[in-house]
Amino acid sequence: MTQIQAARAGRLTPAMERVAEQEQRTPDEIRDAVAAGRLVIPANKAHLAAQYGGAGEGRLAPIGIGRLLRTKVNANLGTSPDRSCKEEELVKMELSLRYGADAVMDLSTGGDLDEIRSFLIANASAPLGTVPMYEMIQNRPVEELTTDDMLRVIEKQARQGVDFFTVHAGLLREHLPLAASRTAGIVSRGGSLLAKWMTYHDRQNPLYELFDELCDIMAQHDVAFSLGDGLRPGCLADATDEAQLAELRVLGELVQRARERGCQAMVEGPGHVPFDQIEKNMVLEEEICDGAPFYVLGPIVTDVAPGYDHITSAVGATAAAYYGASFLCYVTPAEHLALPGPLDVREGVIAHRIAAHAADVARGLPGAREWDDRMSRARTAFDWRGQLEMAMDSERAREIRKASNPDDDYCSMCGREWCAVRRSKEVFADRKPEQP
Amino acid sequence: MTQIQAARAGRLTPAMERVAEQEQRTPDEIRDAVAAGRLVIPANKAHLAAQYGGAGEGRLAPIGIGRLLRTKVNANLGTSPDRSCKEEELVKMELSLRYGADAVMDLSTGGDLDEIRSFLIANASAPLGTVPMYEMIQNRPVEELTTDDMLRVIEKQARQGVDFFTVHAGLLREHLPLAASRTAGIVSRGGSLLAKWMTYHDRQNPLYELFDELCDIMAQHDVAFSLGDGLRPGCLADATDEAQLAELRVLGELVQRARERGCQAMVEGPGHVPFDQIEKNMVLEEEICDGAPFYVLGPIVTDVAPGYDHITSAVGATAAAYYGASFLCYVTPAEHLALPGPLDVREGVIAHRIAAHAADVARGLPGAREWDDRMSRARTAFDWRGQLEMAMDSERAREIRKASNPDDDYCSMCGREWCAVRRSKEVFADRKPEQP
Repeated sequence: MTQIQAARAGRLTPAMERVAEQEQRTPDEIRDAVAAGRLVIPANKAHLAAQYGGAGEGRLAPIGIGRLLRTKVNANLGTSPDRSCKEEELVKMELSLRYGADAVMDLSTGGDLDEIRSFLIANASAPLGTVPMYEMIQNRPVEELTTDDMLRVIEKQARQGVDFFTVHAGLLREHLPLAASRTAGIVSRGGSLLAKWMTYHDRQNPLYELFDELCDIMAQHDVAFSLGDGLRPGCLADATDEAQLAELRVLGELVQRARERGCQAMVEGPGHVPFDQIEKNMVLEEEICDGAPFYVLGPIVTDVAPGYDHITSAVGATAAAYYGASFLCYVTPAEHLALPGPLDVREGVIAHRIAAHAADVARGLPGAREWDDRMSRARTAFDWRGQLEMAMDSERAREIRKASNPDDDYCSMCGREWCAVRRSKEVFADRKPEQP
Repeated sequence: MTQIQAARAGRLTPAMERVAEQEQRTPDEIRDAVAAGRLVIPANKAHLAAQYGGAGEGRLAPIGIGRLLRTKVNANLGTSPDRSCKEEELVKMELSLRYGADAVMDLSTGGDLDEIRSFLIANASAPLGTVPMYEMIQNRPVEELTTDDMLRVIEKQARQGVDFFTVHAGLLREHLPLAASRTAGIVSRGGSLLAKWMTYHDRQNPLYELFDELCDIMAQHDVAFSLGDGLRPGCLADATDEAQLAELRVLGELVQRARERGCQAMVEGPGHVPFDQIEKNMVLEEEICDGAPFYVLGPIVTDVAPGYDHITSAVGATAAAYYGASFLCYVTPAEHLALPGPLDVREGVIAHRIAAHAADVARGLPGAREWDDRMSRARTAFDWRGQLEMAMDSERAREIRKASNPDDDYCSMCGREWCAVRRSKEVFADRKPEQP
């Protein structure tokens, strides 16, 4: 049984119990949300550790993704044809998890993809996703790809223990004319490959046509769908256009079909979206996809700041997570310029954890604000040890403080004499006798 | 005459004409907004270059601040008692302006404040603001400060050519009990000093009582008010509380009094605010302060990420500028930890320019999106030279690209084989014959 099948049958799995415990929800709340498809636990049976009900030798500690829970962050890893080293990917994965990513995707396109993937899965305590299309076309033109090839790769990766697959099954041939006049065309790798295949063969998207078969393979291993948005906008000018929305409507249909066949499904979203259109995008997805967890890439809110797209993305991601997204794919400072290196990974993870947490606070998720309040009490008490320990990136905070040669109690911004917090405490200490 | 007096008299000043030209507005639009107090041109007569109608030898190129115009960014500079070097402040000022800050504030609290201030004004092509209270209490307890001292410093700095003063005249003694039970108390330096003075002397805020006299001095030199929020929240827990709002209502009264006496006035705002409360804060200020330009510090949207507060702030600042702010005070990665150094200045300026521009795009400011669209067209055309030139921080973008040893046309994220943009262009080139 998959998680959703178990939940529908009224059964609690060890994974659901773990998610409930982690997030201070009741197991019943988790089970009901999984049954309704509003909460996804990406946990391939082969990757799931035995104590969480897994069949395999895996070491996955499962997490849940959905509005009931803390907003989650994904870090993309992966080699490129120019740079391929599995140990470097392991370093990036470990960095991602150390800085607090909740999930990772192996988007490798260079080197021995099978070897890299197996190596990462074996070492991943967090859910790991892939875009199987990348393996399908490594070292050959996409036009040569057959439906048998597709099913074979999907089945192999499912057996290897991948927890979620990005599958661009919603991009139909009839959508292509809608994207033809875009400023940036198709910027999704998977989307552009399928567009090429459809155009060359003059046929429908094979992943759409094979969808029920994909579901059956994925249900067998409990691989969750991350229904890819091949037509996500690649610039502000293309945001929320008819191409994007037409694909989203198909994704809504596929959510239902996946659920009917016992699969868990998330939906991927934009991309590049002006700040004022983010709420609308979240509302549309929620409606069209019946509350399936929304997994957004950013969205970045301006196209003009390459080198700082972790920031343009954190801005959009905060709004997205406030208005409806459950899962944020990080964007790093290298976006639009280069393959991210380890330092980019750290910056990207932290920027998106900020977005996730700020949104959780803003939407009133129970318990979220406690962290801020504890930090603020430590700050007001000049409890530097506490502040630095509680910081989202303690190491960075410590480096900055240390480099400034601070007094024991104060920081070099103001020093003791100018410290407003100190003076404020004196003022209110003076006033205490006047208080009733 | 001050800018607002001239505007009310129906006169166009050279500064108004320059602002109109810079922002593709008509001079009449600028004049009407200045007359209504919805647009401020901080331009001390002594700092305003002769070519713009100034009385002094200054070299200020005036800018306008208000919703009619592009959102502006301020960078805070200044020495501390522990670290004081005017040349280092000049470096920070030049860096700020080079990376695109629109204004700077000299918040020095250490060294020879007069010398540092004169040096910076003489070199500042952008408006320069100060918090005169800092000079008033350098090297003496705030309790000893007399009203004569206050007026003397205000007058001297006005003569020196400061373009805008942060004056915490709205924090009244009756507000203090409202702040006594806060988590973080009073975190504004000026606010905490005045609170101390009021508590010690058991008297009203002297800047409130002297307000008409301040107006007369400031009108004489055309120094704009930046009405300080001494009770701005210093943590999420204190946001939008009665202390903050009680002071805001007094700021609303002071805006009217300043305007009546021929002064331009902006209003300062928070601070630390959960993402969901930002819109409400902007709407309240607009109503209570009759459209006076709102100058916000952040707001930062979570307290837990010291070391990354340029990002927590850019998130809040985007929402603030979208919903009503006109002027964003930067926050740097050093916030809450140390006095910012030159690298922090760069990060802070760029993060807040991202916020300002993303908000201008989202609110549909005419012309704002053109930059994004030009960038996106260059990106799609593989015009790397154009992309890097147009980038908000070209130097950073070039460094990242160069370090990755890219192909001529592609980036190391995907390389040629995996480039979605290339494939997308092939798809739509293939389709061209089918198009009508």
